[in-house]
Amino acid sequence: MGAWTERRLIEKIRKAGGGNGFGIVKSIGDDCCEVTASGSLLLSTDSLVEGVHFDSDFHPPHLLGRKSIAVNISDIAAMGGTPRFILLSLCLPAELEWDWISAWLDGVFEILDEYNCVLIGGDTVKAAELVIGVTVIGEPVAGGAVYRSGAAAGDTVWVTGPLGSAGGGLKLLTSGTVKSYPVGAPSRYDPLLRAHLDPVPLVSTGKKLAGCGFVTAMQDISDGIATDLAHICKASGVAAYIDRDLLPFLPELSDLALDLQLDPDALILSAGEDYQLVFTVKKGCEDEFVRQVCAEVPGLVRIGLVKTGEGVFLNNDGQCIDIRFQGYEH
Amino acid sequence: MGAWTERRLIEKIRKAGGGNGFGIVKSIGDDCCEVTASGSLLLSTDSLVEGVHFDSDFHPPHLLGRKSIAVNISDIAAMGGTPRFILLSLCLPAELEWDWISAWLDGVFEILDEYNCVLIGGDTVKAAELVIGVTVIGEPVAGGAVYRSGAAAGDTVWVTGPLGSAGGGLKLLTSGTVKSYPVGAPSRYDPLLRAHLDPVPLVSTGKKLAGCGFVTAMQDISDGIATDLAHICKASGVAAYIDRDLLPFLPELSDLALDLQLDPDALILSAGEDYQLVFTVKKGCEDEFVRQVCAEVPGLVRIGLVKTGEGVFLNNDGQCIDIRFQGYEH
Repeated sequence: MGAWTERRLIEKIRKAGGGNGFGIVKSIGDDCCEVTASGSLLLSTDSLVEGVHFDSDFHPPHLLGRKSIAVNISDIAAMGGTPRFILLSLCLPAELEWDWISAWLDGVFEILDEYNCVLIGGDTVKAAELVIGVTVIGEPVAGGAVYRSGAAAGDTVWVTGPLGSAGGGLKLLTSGTVKSYPVGAPSRYDPLLRAHLDPVPLVSTGKKLAGCGFVTAMQDISDGIATDLAHICKASGVAAYIDRDLLPFLPELSDLALDLQLDPDALILSAGEDYQLVFTVKKGCEDEFVRQVCAEVPGLVRIGLVKTGEGVFLNNDGQCIDIRFQGYEH
Repeated sequence: MGAWTERRLIEKIRKAGGGNGFGIVKSIGDDCCEVTASGSLLLSTDSLVEGVHFDSDFHPPHLLGRKSIAVNISDIAAMGGTPRFILLSLCLPAELEWDWISAWLDGVFEILDEYNCVLIGGDTVKAAELVIGVTVIGEPVAGGAVYRSGAAAGDTVWVTGPLGSAGGGLKLLTSGTVKSYPVGAPSRYDPLLRAHLDPVPLVSTGKKLAGCGFVTAMQDISDGIATDLAHICKASGVAAYIDRDLLPFLPELSDLALDLQLDPDALILSAGEDYQLVFTVKKGCEDEFVRQVCAEVPGLVRIGLVKTGEGVFLNNDGQCIDIRFQGYEH
């Protein structure tokens, strides 16, 4: 099918209907797009660079399209918001295959549909390097967004699910243990591969946590809990103490660590890209939180406690070490 | 001073106060930023790529910082809006000099101040290629934004000022006639060099045009009037007829054309990056528009007429040729 052209790209975007919908006054095709807004809007922007954030040798374009949007939607989920609109800014090498970008766009539109989110504008430019720029616009829940800065001593620390899965999946792919995805037969490592290749932004969970009234601070885990919990601690002016024994991870991660002779703790604490949420529950509200929220949202795990001070401390085998900001840096 | 580091970059951004202000609920330092909004918001995103959109061999970083923001603010001006907030997404080569990025940021903050606009978020990533991604958020005037789609037969076509200046300046720099800016002594070509290196987004003019009630369609001239007026015609389902003799340009452009033996018409019609506005005035309202608006906004020039049909036609020496979309394509 040859290389991409801007005309074909725009035609496909127009056809996919990246355009009209609730709250959109003016979509693609003018100097700006225009959206209605009442109260406040949440905004986040991120660039994914080939070779830094993804490797198209093993990342199928369709799943990469999904992930390009997912990681941005996750920033909205981390504030407890609802994603509404997306702007794309694409730097595409001239020789990029049309089939590749077409499959990538299919993934983009698929996940946008799933989250009731609409592509309303953007731009495309030829460049030497493949760079995918995404700006996402969302709305906070009625009670207001949850920031990183609200944690206080006595709050408990929680995560929404297993850690290290995406890091495990990435290890499988970069080590050449798994060459491509999907592999012919279902792999026992599917959950790890999926976690890296097609992460799920926790919008509905984020909204429930923000709306329940017990959550004081929240953040998504993109760089590993050692770094992302450190952001909460720094913004809130507190320290967090978490227990190694309480950190959730998939059984497949233990298998992988044995297979590849890896330290599972490095993946669990520092690998990042899990897009789980780490959050704090207000002091004295834990029982209420468990009754009201944990019953409705499966998988929430308490992993530690907020105290006065600064840093992120890991209790492990009777030792307590500061692990703050020991995560992955892009 | 060596290469840039993310820590230094963020420190400088924090110091410059890229942060708080009217309408900002949450600024840099959380998963998203949050802004208040009532009615509607205008949004636009663009990436500037080294070697495609700018050449840092002759573009001083301070002026490039100004231009990186100016060309995005111009999209808001083209709708008659007021720019309010900026998100930056920077892909920076590891070896980029700190002095360069520091001067670039000075330019960014200088122009943001001039337009009462605030940097509220963004991200930075190491990449092989220098890519500057800017998302701008603005507000329409009370009467509503002006789109490309409102022109109708009988309307007159106008521009806000001289065309081809930026194209002339670029020729001076790429031909090596001028090696750097500022040159020691003031050059007679200063207005052309300025137009390319430090373009002025016409926010105040755009607001007056949008607010006067006579303007039916508007767009900024980034790709040359042959292309940008064609966008208005396509979106409005009309044709435009413009007169070569009415197109405004600087006397310095005639001098340059003689000096370098260039066709001035190519620069005036197709060179782009002038960031003047092209707009249409409602049929029958021309006299009123001249009395009320031209008195207040100097430099507005009527260049042609909207008719039924499609295309952009240039009347020149008794000939009439279709020039639609003959502009610069990035």
